[in-house]
Amino acid sequence: MRALVLERKGELRLRDIDLPHEPGPDAVRIKVHTVGVCGSDVHYYTHGGIGEYIVRAPMVLGHEGSGVIEAVGHNVRGLKIGDRVCMEPGVPDMSSRATKMGIYNVDPGVTFWATPPVHGILTSSVVHPAAFTYQLPDAVSFAEGAMVEPFAVGMHAAARAKIVPGDVAVVTGAGTIGIMVALAALAGGCSRVIISDISTEKLNIAAQYDGIIPVNIREQELAQVVASETDGWGADVVFEASGAPQVFETIFRSVRPGGAVVLVGLPPGKVSLDVNAAIAREVRIETVFRYANVFDRALALIASGKVNLKPLISHSYSFEHAIKAFERAAEGRPADIKLQIIMNPEGA
Amino acid sequence: MRALVLERKGELRLRDIDLPHEPGPDAVRIKVHTVGVCGSDVHYYTHGGIGEYIVRAPMVLGHEGSGVIEAVGHNVRGLKIGDRVCMEPGVPDMSSRATKMGIYNVDPGVTFWATPPVHGILTSSVVHPAAFTYQLPDAVSFAEGAMVEPFAVGMHAAARAKIVPGDVAVVTGAGTIGIMVALAALAGGCSRVIISDISTEKLNIAAQYDGIIPVNIREQELAQVVASETDGWGADVVFEASGAPQVFETIFRSVRPGGAVVLVGLPPGKVSLDVNAAIAREVRIETVFRYANVFDRALALIASGKVNLKPLISHSYSFEHAIKAFERAAEGRPADIKLQIIMNPEGA
Amino acid sequence: MRALVLERKGELRLRDIDLPHEPGPDAVRIKVHTVGVCGSDVHYYTHGGIGEYIVRAPMVLGHEGSGVIEAVGHNVRGLKIGDRVCMEPGVPDMSSRATKMGIYNVDPGVTFWATPPVHGILTSSVVHPAAFTYQLPDAVSFAEGAMVEPFAVGMHAAARAKIVPGDVAVVTGAGTIGIMVALAALAGGCSRVIISDISTEKLNIAAQYDGIIPVNIREQELAQVVASETDGWGADVVFEASGAPQVFETIFRSVRPGGAVVLVGLPPGKVSLDVNAAIAREVRIETVFRYANVFDRALALIASGKVNLKPLISHSYSFEHAIKAFERAAEGRPADIKLQIIMNPEGA
Amino acid sequence: MRALVLERKGELRLRDIDLPHEPGPDAVRIKVHTVGVCGSDVHYYTHGGIGEYIVRAPMVLGHEGSGVIEAVGHNVRGLKIGDRVCMEPGVPDMSSRATKMGIYNVDPGVTFWATPPVHGILTSSVVHPAAFTYQLPDAVSFAEGAMVEPFAVGMHAAARAKIVPGDVAVVTGAGTIGIMVALAALAGGCSRVIISDISTEKLNIAAQYDGIIPVNIREQELAQVVASETDGWGADVVFEASGAPQVFETIFRSVRPGGAVVLVGLPPGKVSLDVNAAIAREVRIETVFRYANVFDRALALIASGKVNLKPLISHSYSFEHAIKAFERAAEGRPADIKLQIIMNPEGA
Repeated sequence: MRALVLERKGELRLRDIDLPHEPGPDAVRIKVHTVGVCGSDVHYYTHGGIGEYIVRAPMVLGHEGSGVIEAVGHNVRGLKIGDRVCMEPGVPDMSSRATKMGIYNVDPGVTFWATPPVHGILTSSVVHPAAFTYQLPDAVSFAEGAMVEPFAVGMHAAARAKIVPGDVAVVTGAGTIGIMVALAALAGGCSRVIISDISTEKLNIAAQYDGIIPVNIREQELAQVVASETDGWGADVVFEASGAPQVFETIFRSVRPGGAVVLVGLPPGKVSLDVNAAIAREVRIETVFRYANVFDRALALIASGKVNLKPLISHSYSFEHAIKAFERAAEGRPADIKLQIIMNPEGA
Repeated sequence: MRALVLERKGELRLRDIDLPHEPGPDAVRIKVHTVGVCGSDVHYYTHGGIGEYIVRAPMVLGHEGSGVIEAVGHNVRGLKIGDRVCMEPGVPDMSSRATKMGIYNVDPGVTFWATPPVHGILTSSVVHPAAFTYQLPDAVSFAEGAMVEPFAVGMHAAARAKIVPGDVAVVTGAGTIGIMVALAALAGGCSRVIISDISTEKLNIAAQYDGIIPVNIREQELAQVVASETDGWGADVVFEASGAPQVFETIFRSVRPGGAVVLVGLPPGKVSLDVNAAIAREVRIETVFRYANVFDRALALIASGKVNLKPLISHSYSFEHAIKAFERAAEGRPADIKLQIIMNPEGA
Repeated sequence: MRALVLERKGELRLRDIDLPHEPGPDAVRIKVHTVGVCGSDVHYYTHGGIGEYIVRAPMVLGHEGSGVIEAVGHNVRGLKIGDRVCMEPGVPDMSSRATKMGIYNVDPGVTFWATPPVHGILTSSVVHPAAFTYQLPDAVSFAEGAMVEPFAVGMHAAARAKIVPGDVAVVTGAGTIGIMVALAALAGGCSRVIISDISTEKLNIAAQYDGIIPVNIREQELAQVVASETDGWGADVVFEASGAPQVFETIFRSVRPGGAVVLVGLPPGKVSLDVNAAIAREVRIETVFRYANVFDRALALIASGKVNLKPLISHSYSFEHAIKAFERAAEGRPADIKLQIIMNPEGA
Repeated sequence: MRALVLERKGELRLRDIDLPHEPGPDAVRIKVHTVGVCGSDVHYYTHGGIGEYIVRAPMVLGHEGSGVIEAVGHNVRGLKIGDRVCMEPGVPDMSSRATKMGIYNVDPGVTFWATPPVHGILTSSVVHPAAFTYQLPDAVSFAEGAMVEPFAVGMHAAARAKIVPGDVAVVTGAGTIGIMVALAALAGGCSRVIISDISTEKLNIAAQYDGIIPVNIREQELAQVVASETDGWGADVVFEASGAPQVFETIFRSVRPGGAVVLVGLPPGKVSLDVNAAIAREVRIETVFRYANVFDRALALIASGKVNLKPLISHSYSFEHAIKAFERAAEGRPADIKLQIIMNPEGA
């Protein structure tokens, strides 16, 4: 099977590789249509690893995907050949303690596409459990279907925030995940989202959406903008999506008494936090690790038109130009929110 | 002070009446601009009472209001003469056990405008605690300000539902409150709302809004529509806003395993419930009594444009024609969602 | 394999029957030690069915069990031959939507021991998924291990109540489940539990425990006792464990504003509820269907000594006298809280 | 009125001082019986301030008190002269946004006894709002009544933890507050509490209670003990009650996937946190500032016998020897959990 293989740090190759073909009784095989390029894919390419996950053998990249079912295992109900789908890339041990509790994303036994040593989906077809494969509503394109994975992070953050309708939110960081969080927060009940970054390009893209208020923290102090937007009360929820240590230092200044801070972005190491400030306001701090039980909800919001992810797809490449897509992604152009690779254009 | 007085069941009069004029240290006086006519006002007029609340003395009607501050008590901070405001009509004992817990709406000591023996606000000006008086954002008109009170019921229902972003909701009953609940549910994170009624006129008004799916239960079975819209799984949340005993009988058929039913409508007496069906799906049932801590959130959603209440204002009357407004309201025209009375048109 | 078989309504026989013997890769085989007699077992015996579940073929009874592992499948981790265990009798489809959400108890695909057509465990050994088999701490006997299943219902009710430490609870019904709920509520944070019944014998057994206040509703009105115990405020949580329709009629009179009513008992059909009273106090109503994710918690509380179930074991029978146990259970002696059958006394 | 006055840092004097005597309409006057010495009182004495709170004028110390009502304002219901009571020392603005939401402890306008410039209660009588004055049940002594305030911190921590019955908890720090948290966690539903400290004396006092497992972190690694007590899964809830920066560094190692960390202790400044470890386990972090709505719950648990605070009262002094009590408290003897001062011994 032809695939985009990360041979080792810095070396990508389009070549044949042996991958599973026959779905087991509870699985399906999906002909991959579209795959988004994620920051983690790029980081494996440029750095050869993320934290404790090191690329020690050739690995197929890609985990944000949509496609068409081309084979189904004999136990599978609710999915059939020809169905247009998107896929949740993490598969837990279905019998584990965490999974039984509904928090399968934090199951220590979870495997995840394109996380060493597990292959990803930048290849023609993949075998996957039916339980983590979701039918695309007619109104949702393959391109949007491949956006569900990153949007799911925003959805999960919004769910953990326990938004009360009408909440005012702050999102620190207007990268891909920051914008996903902002859109999920708005669709999930917030009246307004104040988003902060140091990149004017990123803020301009975010500000296209109704209800998003951009703040360039090179020009304005975030806590002051929040105070002025909320009569000095503070935001109900602050989502941290930048991973920048200096943002953590002052994060509690923007949240109201009794409000919530939701940590999404991964900082490069330990961070310094003003715990006393959090305690004085009795802030609830939630953390977000990937997502669980949100793919269907994400699809519902996209299908209903409440969430429009199309403006965030910056450019699409054919599979033959997949390496170009990674080279551009590695440049880190500020206005590139999402690059996608079309694997099987005839599959639509 | 000139007021619309319910002298006794069936007898309304526009006449002078003595009402408080000087605000205490924590209160303000508001020149009333617009007052909506509520079903409860009409019921006092046509029936002389609601449940245990009997009109035994002349009472000023009206509790859905907006206006302009014309006097402030000496302790008041955050409000000043000239501010455009709307008012929360229930005032609890601020030192009570319920109030300290943040559930002041269920404080046994609460008083509420136009609920015997407390006068309402269909008069030129009213004195009210500053703590229950909310500034209107510039983008919110007096007419919308007077809609905040009924919308607050929907907001409180949506808050108690604990909507998770992307939920599918059902609302049974497309009257004023049903539509308010549907709009709050959509703004509060639902992807779609299926609304049911027996009135085509009411359903047509509801169906003007994106995301609302009307079901005429004279033509379709609600549970079947829900099943077909949700792959047989059921709705995440069902809001009961009809008060119709026969709706309660089958309410649990439309909700998914582990979902929620939120009871908003008041039935005429005890109702028969299939508790075993609720238990088999382990349904959470929430009940809604008026609202608490939602006026500011309602205003935020209206101001941001996420909620548009203007199409629901069916007609406006001048204060001199207030009795006509009540007569029309008493007719119960199906397409009349909200009638309003303009008290002081020059106040804008 | 020798088993207690319900041949048909009213006819029990101790006889050989073919049952699975080889555990699959994720399962274990347990030599059964002790089995409790549940009201549902007795009801199948005396009535031949419960609701839609009809005994149409011979069925082994029993689902409250403990034993010793005698074989393990090759995928099983954390359990080994010789381990003393108790078993959770409901097994869901591990890939279903409900199971992924952590609410596997309401998975429509769940199978449950001794619920037609699924055989129970009143036999020498059973095969069961390791994921639903729990090691007994050293301090927990086989007799107590076989009590975990009914206690789990109480634990799940206490979990769904969302008890805040120091809450005052009411339990209506002092049968086996009522007492289990009362003990779980006390261990789970309540300061006191007021329990009501019409049987003095049952109330006396409940009242042996510190913190339980018995109320014979033939002699006292429950709502009055609750009011006098709570300065007129009401109980924070009311657990309904009687299933008696007349108890439902007045259930909301005992709960405080903003409190919770938790429905555990199954009434014989639809019940009449004073929904307006629930709304006026804005009561949250939770329902309880079996349990999920509580067996380990139940074991922790028993092992720590916070919960003592031993006084509730009224009598134990040997397997040869199993039919006598059922005959006595069918008598419904008021002081019989739990009868148990010892299958393999040497197994201890 | 005679009082213990902190004249300035390091200088305490028993002398007369003018304090309010007439209760307003919603207040009571309490003849003080017993007052506990809190670490914050001692810190004002030894350091002249805590953070931004500086002693700039003579201030009466003490905020943990019980006594007898000797006068009542004319609006007061539910309390009368002669009632034995304890007092909640923080008084919010009753009309503020935070108070209306039920989170009056984080109201920016709250005043608190013995926090500059507000006088405390080490004096013969105090005037206080009835809403924050709680009747002592007959079973609760004045000494226990004066323990309710510090225990309330533990109760509030336990409430915010959202303990599920049977949870395993860790408490880091076995000082007064650590022990209070541990007792509240046990009474609030935990099966076991592992408590850690570097003081053998403190751990010995904690270990007197059933269900508390002491860990001297000079001898054992906390995370290892937790892993061994929980089959490698981790604790459901970790309460941080030491305020020690090095404890924060590794706090997430002891918590299970999806568990909670509750921050109670105030560190001396910003702390370094392994946010990535928290995210990988998707930990919920709650913070605790004093307490709200728990005094009545604390009293209920003490009165019912579920919580026994008496062993924690290390020594009692008469009012004449109040300065000696402070001198001993300033020594910081490890086995001194609580020192109390008896103001009016005849008051009992």
